Parts: sequence; structure tokens; C-alpha cells
Amino acid sequence: MPRTIWLDDERLFTWDQTRLPFEAIVIELAGAADCAHAISSMQVRGAPLIGAVGAYGLAFALREDDSDAGLSAARATLLATRPTAVNLRWALDRVAVAVAELPRDERAARAWREAAAICDEDVACNLSIGRHAAALLAPLRRGVDPLRILTHCNAGRIATVDHGTALAAVEALADAGVPVHVWVDETRPRNQGAGLTAWELRERSIAHTVIVDNAGGLLMRQGLVDAVIVGCDRVAANGDVANKVGTYLKALAARDNGLPFYVACPVSTIDAQCRGGDAIAIEQRSPREVTHVGGRAPDGSLVEVQITPDGSPALNPAFDITPARLVTALITEHGSVAASLDAIRGLRPAGAPA
Amino acid sequence: MPRTIWLDDERLFTWDQTRLPFEAIVIELAGAADCAHAISSMQVRGAPLIGAVGAYGLAFALREDDSDAGLSAARATLLATRPTAVNLRWALDRVAVAVAELPRDERAARAWREAAAICDEDVACNLSIGRHAAALLAPLRRGVDPLRILTHCNAGRIATVDHGTALAAVEALADAGVPVHVWVDETRPRNQGAGLTAWELRERSIAHTVIVDNAGGLLMRQGLVDAVIVGCDRVAANGDVANKVGTYLKALAARDNGLPFYVACPVSTIDAQCRGGDAIAIEQRSPREVTHVGGRAPDGSLVEVQITPDGSPALNPAFDITPARLVTALITEHGSVAASLDAIRGLRPAGAPA
Repeated sequence: MPRTIWLDDERLFTWDQTRLPFEAIVIELAGAADCAHAISSMQVRGAPLIGAVGAYGLAFALREDDSDAGLSAARATLLATRPTAVNLRWALDRVAVAVAELPRDERAARAWREAAAICDEDVACNLSIGRHAAALLAPLRRGVDPLRILTHCNAGRIATVDHGTALAAVEALADAGVPVHVWVDETRPRNQGAGLTAWELRERSIAHTVIVDNAGGLLMRQGLVDAVIVGCDRVAANGDVANKVGTYLKALAARDNGLPFYVACPVSTIDAQCRGGDAIAIEQRSPREVTHVGGRAPDGSLVEVQITPDGSPALNPAFDITPARLVTALITEHGSVAASLDAIRGLRPAGAPA
Repeated sequence: MPRTIWLDDERLFTWDQTRLPFEAIVIELAGAADCAHAISSMQVRGAPLIGAVGAYGLAFALREDDSDAGLSAARATLLATRPTAVNLRWALDRVAVAVAELPRDERAARAWREAAAICDEDVACNLSIGRHAAALLAPLRRGVDPLRILTHCNAGRIATVDHGTALAAVEALADAGVPVHVWVDETRPRNQGAGLTAWELRERSIAHTVIVDNAGGLLMRQGLVDAVIVGCDRVAANGDVANKVGTYLKALAARDNGLPFYVACPVSTIDAQCRGGDAIAIEQRSPREVTHVGGRAPDGSLVEVQITPDGSPALNPAFDITPARLVTALITEHGSVAASLDAIRGLRPAGAPA
């Protein structure tokens, strides 16, 4: 399969993830507006992928207006598409810094190369995360059972340029011949687990079972889970983790059952300027994602069905904060580190100024 | 509104809860088979209501066959409709004991009266639970905000003969003029929160907001919850609580945030013969409840949409176990008691032999 975002004859393509798992539709991102729309409409999602699409969006914008004002305006527009993921800001800043001192007529081409480099580095980074995570997880297998991993949301290939973060570990384990079984949280409200993680695992023929978000605690109590691993959208300087809403509940259950809770995160998701989880703005999305559920109707059409009574209000926070004390380790491209101020300080993403 | 189960000219009626919140359809339960089907298909659900329907089912069965063998067979058939709720067994046993020593031609009428008494006692019991719970909850209100209560699943009027258990507290608070706001967990996979609890609260004009099951932990961390109260399906002799899957995760979050976690339970849900939560059989329901979600399509029809890829397996445990150490108190018709062996021992449901 191609990467999640790829070039063909200098044109940029990705999947429309809102149609998965039922339809794998390729869409072209033909300009900055397409990139911004793809992020805000969640045609693309996942912190690393959002960063890559944002970087290309800025490169597109510079083709149309390569002035300082144009750069600044495009950066602001793209940054506003999703507020929580720090990769987006990181990727936009990286492109902006790379072109800032250049003559205007060199900026667009340089930005394009920087976006491509961000993509290549994401792939290498994720492979490294996968290797480090697999080394931690493999010894947790008990007896003849497969290694039983629970994950929340989608931190797979299609959340990144390739391989994924949390699911890079599963991929690496499978490639190494370790029998593995994944408990897939469906991850309401958008069901990225049921729709995307299950789809990816099925494509790769990796054993998995979809469960409702409510079931993970029971499975841990019943001894059916060996470890939890999730991706993340932002790590604060103190090790607090912002990830898809519901992550915190699984971290609590892991702790209550003596199970390791790992967070797979490229160093680019660490926000050294954010002192703690309480300082992270939680994106509030449309209540309609709560009151309605999208899926495939018996006639094969994709529809949204309403599950709440008319007039009952809903609230839809997209992320929650898992305090560092519940995180066994962060697994970065440089290896695992404790989720603490001292351990995180000094980590640098690939490509960042030292 | 009438009770959730009611007699009209000696005929028995209830709501088809599988059509709520979109259609409130009255169905007649015209015999033992109707009662068994209503329970197993979840046209009726909620531990106390299941007990009431089971009792009437046994009365119906005795009209058709009032022999000892008929009684025993009907009891076994009804008991098998839902395995987790202990009220069902309790109600069936109560009817069976009441008729066992009677001449055969008196059994059916006596069973019918016993079923009616179970219903009347449930109403009185729930009113009492509501009063006790409201007295505990009202002082938790902070400042000018309404008292903010989080609940899981549906422990409301339509889970019982009337008033509910956990929601009896909300009803009692509202009746006493205490401003109250309810966070309603949608409660996948069957969405009894989004569909039933929200519907009940809306019918009563009580402020509420529907959230996905994943969101409660975040809201607690953000200081937006004052207390959690849930119903339950069975309490073991040591105080462990079996309730709708996901309850355990909310109990963990309440503990992590220093919030009280109350379980509203008629004494009839306490199973003195069950030593602990691990001895409670967890009902496994159809994977289709996970892979599909029912709701109202844009054309107004009620349909189920598929949310998982074809061929991805799913697991659907219906309940989980909340260990007694996470339960602040059980709130019974006799008042609140600690969730512990010593406190529970000796509690007797209304109508039970001493």
C-alpha cells in the first residue's frame, strides 16, 4: 500500500478517512484550502498526519502568496483547523522557519521539500517507535496466549504518514513473529477504533476484536489484557498526556489492575512550553457527533442515525488528559522515557534545531 | 404517566423500550411466552422491571399448567432469559414459594396477586431509595451551580415499575426544588443512557446533557461533576457491584477525583449467596450490538447501521464488576450502607421472610 499521504507526478493525494472502513476513496489535496478542509473535516486525522498535511498546506499557500504576510496568514489559518495536536504547530513552524530568511521566489519550493522531509522523517520515526515498543511489549506475553494489547482510538498507519505510532508496535511484533491480539476500543464519538484501527488490522491480517469503550476495564479485571498502548496528541512538559477522550479511563483501569500503560509519541508531540495537562485546551467538537452515529445502512448507503431524543443537549470534548502518574512510559523514536519533567527535558525531535 | 408495567381490565401492558426514544409503543404481555420474550429481547430491561415481568410471567404460566412440574419448568424458562440480574431470580422464587403449598386450582390467582404485590413494593421501595439518596446528594451542591450528577445506563422509571432507583434520587431532588443537572453517559452498546435516561429526563423537564461514555473522566477532572450515582443488577455479599459495562471505569474516575460513587439498589438486588464479584456470571450478548448501532435515519425510519469493517470480530460483555472498595455507599430502601460484608449481612428486602 502507498503511504497515507503521497505524491504522484508532483500532485498530492491522501485517503478520505470519513468514508472508511466502507470505502477507501483517494482524494487530491490541490491547494492550501484543500489541506485546511481535509484537517478540519477530519478527512485526515491523527496528530502526525495532520502535521504533514499542514506542512504541505503551507507550501501550497506560498505558491499563491510568498510574502511574509501571506506566510503568516496561511500559518494562522492552518493552525486553527485543529487546536489540540501540537504536531500541527510544530510542522507549520518548521516550514515557516525554513523559508523565513529565503528570497520570496525560493520559498514555495523550499517549503515543499521541507514538507516532504517531515513525511520521510515521520516514517523513520514511527519505525523506530515500533521497534522500541515491541521490545518492551514482547516480554509481557504470558504462556501460550498471544500477547493481548488494548488500544484506544487510531494511532495506526493512517494516523501518520506510515506505520503509525501505537500500532507500529503491533506491526513490529507481528513482523517479528510474536503472536499478538488487539482489543480495539470503538472510540466514540467518531469510532476511529471500530472504523479505522479494525480496518487497518484486518488489512494486515492481525488478530483483533472490537469492543465498546466501556468494556476495557472488565477485560483487564478478567486478566485478558497484558498491556495498553495508545498514541497521543500532545504531551505536556510534566508528562501529562492529551489523547482521544476516554484514554484517561483506560489508564486508570490499567493502574488498578497492575498493567503497563504506554504512550507512543514522536518527540514532536511533546510541548515543552506547556507546563501541564490542565494548560492544554480541550477541543470541543459538534454535539452532533454525540447525538448521531454514522455507519452503513442495510441498503449499503452511508448514513447518520440519531440516537438521542429530539431536544436533549449533548457535549463533545474530543480529548482528555491522562496525568503523568498513570503513564508507565512514553515511547519515542529515541526509546522509552519516564513521563516526567526531568526525563522529557532535552528530548529533541528529528530535524529540530539542537 | 402510568407505571412502566400496568394492568387495564386485568390485561397486562408495558412499553416496548427498543423503540424509545423515538416511539413510545405500548405492548400487551398476554402470556408467559410474551413475558419471556419481552425480557430476552429487551423490550423490558432494568433489574427491578425484569423481576416484575418475570413474576407476571410465572403467574401466566400457572394458568396454563398449575402442576409442580409446570411451575418448575416455567420458572427455569423465565430465569434463563437474562442471567445477571438477581431480581429476576428473587421475584420468581418469591412467587414460587408463595404458591408451592397451595392446591393447584389456587396457584394462578395467588401468583398474580404476588406479582402485583412485587410491583407495589417496588414503587414504595424506589420512593424510599430516592428520599435517602437525595438526602445524601443535596449537600454536595457547590455554590450557585446546580448539583451535577453523572449517571450510567438507565436506572430510571422505565427500568423499574416506577420512579427508578438512581434516577429516583434525581426525581426527589427536583421535587424538593434542588437545582440539578444530570450528565448522561450514552452507555454503549445499547445506548440506554442516550435513548432512555435522556428521554425520561426530558419528559420530566430535568436539565441534562448527553455525553459519550469516554467523557466522564475528563468532566470529573475538570470539576464539573459533584457525584456519581448508578443503579445495579446484582450486589455480591462482599459489596462488589455488577452493573452495566463501563460502571467500573466511572467508579475509578470518581475515586481518582475524590468524588462520591453511590449505587442505588433495592435490597432485592443483594445476592447473599454470591461471595464476591468474580463469582457473578457476566452475560455475553450478541456482537451485533457492538458492530451495529440503532437509531433514526434521516427519513425517520429506525435502522441499524454497521460501524465496523466486514469480518472484524467483536465481543459484547453486558456488565462489569465494580469492587466494593470503590463504592462510597449502597443506597437501599432502608437507607445507605457501606458496601461491605458486615454492613450488608442481615438486610432483608420488603416482603422477604425474616
